[in-house]
Amino acid sequence: MQNIKLTLRYDGSAYHGWQIQNNAVTVQQTVTDAIKKITGEDVNLIGCGRTDAGVHANRYICNFKTNSHIPPERYAYALNTHLPDDLVCVRSDVVNDEFHSKYSAKKKNYIYRILNSEYPDPFFRNRVWHIKGSLDTHEMLRAAEAFVGTHDFSGFASSGLTVKTTVRTIYKCEVYKEGDIITVDIEGNGFLYNMVRIITGTLVWVGMGKLRAEDMSDIIRSCDRTRGGITAPPDGLFLWGVEY
Amino acid sequence: MQNIKLTLRYDGSAYHGWQIQNNAVTVQQTVTDAIKKITGEDVNLIGCGRTDAGVHANRYICNFKTNSHIPPERYAYALNTHLPDDLVCVRSDVVNDEFHSKYSAKKKNYIYRILNSEYPDPFFRNRVWHIKGSLDTHEMLRAAEAFVGTHDFSGFASSGLTVKTTVRTIYKCEVYKEGDIITVDIEGNGFLYNMVRIITGTLVWVGMGKLRAEDMSDIIRSCDRTRGGITAPPDGLFLWGVEY
Repeated sequence: MQNIKLTLRYDGSAYHGWQIQNNAVTVQQTVTDAIKKITGEDVNLIGCGRTDAGVHANRYICNFKTNSHIPPERYAYALNTHLPDDLVCVRSDVVNDEFHSKYSAKKKNYIYRILNSEYPDPFFRNRVWHIKGSLDTHEMLRAAEAFVGTHDFSGFASSGLTVKTTVRTIYKCEVYKEGDIITVDIEGNGFLYNMVRIITGTLVWVGMGKLRAEDMSDIIRSCDRTRGGITAPPDGLFLWGVEY
Repeated sequence: MQNIKLTLRYDGSAYHGWQIQNNAVTVQQTVTDAIKKITGEDVNLIGCGRTDAGVHANRYICNFKTNSHIPPERYAYALNTHLPDDLVCVRSDVVNDEFHSKYSAKKKNYIYRILNSEYPDPFFRNRVWHIKGSLDTHEMLRAAEAFVGTHDFSGFASSGLTVKTTVRTIYKCEVYKEGDIITVDIEGNGFLYNMVRIITGTLVWVGMGKLRAEDMSDIIRSCDRTRGGITAPPDGLFLWGVEY
């Protein structure tokens, strides 16, 4: 039996997120169906995490065990003949039996993109959060620095999922602007439900002057969801990469 | 009566090109309908040229005459409240009565994008020509230089449209590569039907080694459509800008 690791790249606009649900098109279901077409097997496809409806992936990692004798590196090519054009397998490898896309992950990197311009851009629709009013990216970057380190992020999570601990370590939280695009670039050992979107929404409130950068550490320590900003929409969010 | 010039930006994937047709969604129809919603008038919307089904525009220019007293710069904002999100008016101005989007145009710039990679990219679907095999961009650039100047381009046009002359002047024809994206960047005083797509298809054949760069001048002079490459698909083509 081989343990096959897939690297996916997808535009999440048309998907109800990663996880299989009844009566909804999901990434996990779509890839599981494609694997069945090439191996004949109903595999248990393990993802590196849930992505919500409308969230995208630059590099999403998943794995499954199979008795098929297809050469590992051929899965990418074979799957793409059965996958829709908004979901591409960019790589396939054999990994050791213990590899688990979720539990073996050491770091995750997310990118959130904001289009800060007078008008929306047809070429970025569903893939940015369009904000018309000007944002102070210098203040946003100052606020972002407060997230780096090990904190209880219970004030930056949506309820609904049970987790053992709400403590996470953030290695990087940066804000940069290129043209009209403001990027929030965040890396950590794990993220709570909606955490990146709530951090982004909070940084945007700082950019708008509704919150102050110097209060950010205090807001994090308060563990009070009502003190942060809104939850940013899913459109601008990309799972950028996972380290093992 | 005011002559209003609009600058549009659109993803052409869902449109049957610019020009109004029965039973098809076109850019001209969509914008004309939006103008009617804000002015109440059935205007004659003059475009800078036809774009084909599936072709995109970074900057498309059109104009119309109106008795409405809406301030010229407000049209962009007002139209966007009635336009779908793949079609945005990025600017509106008043111009002199003689301005005609098509006949006043002095130069047009087109960009054609090729994704030269093992796998397609979900974030570029419908907006690039995906080519898997390697392309020699150095040879493509050498061939591209032959198009610069004033030539009879009848060998680089699809039949179907009647034109007074098939002579056009090309000011720039460049090929450059950034990452996996190869761009053909071409500027001229005008273009025949499908001309940019046939030039691109011909340059791709040079990149594949099916045609030689040193034969390009001869192929142009032959005025023989059968000597060039295929017509590139519409997906990768963008009207980039128009000069007046």
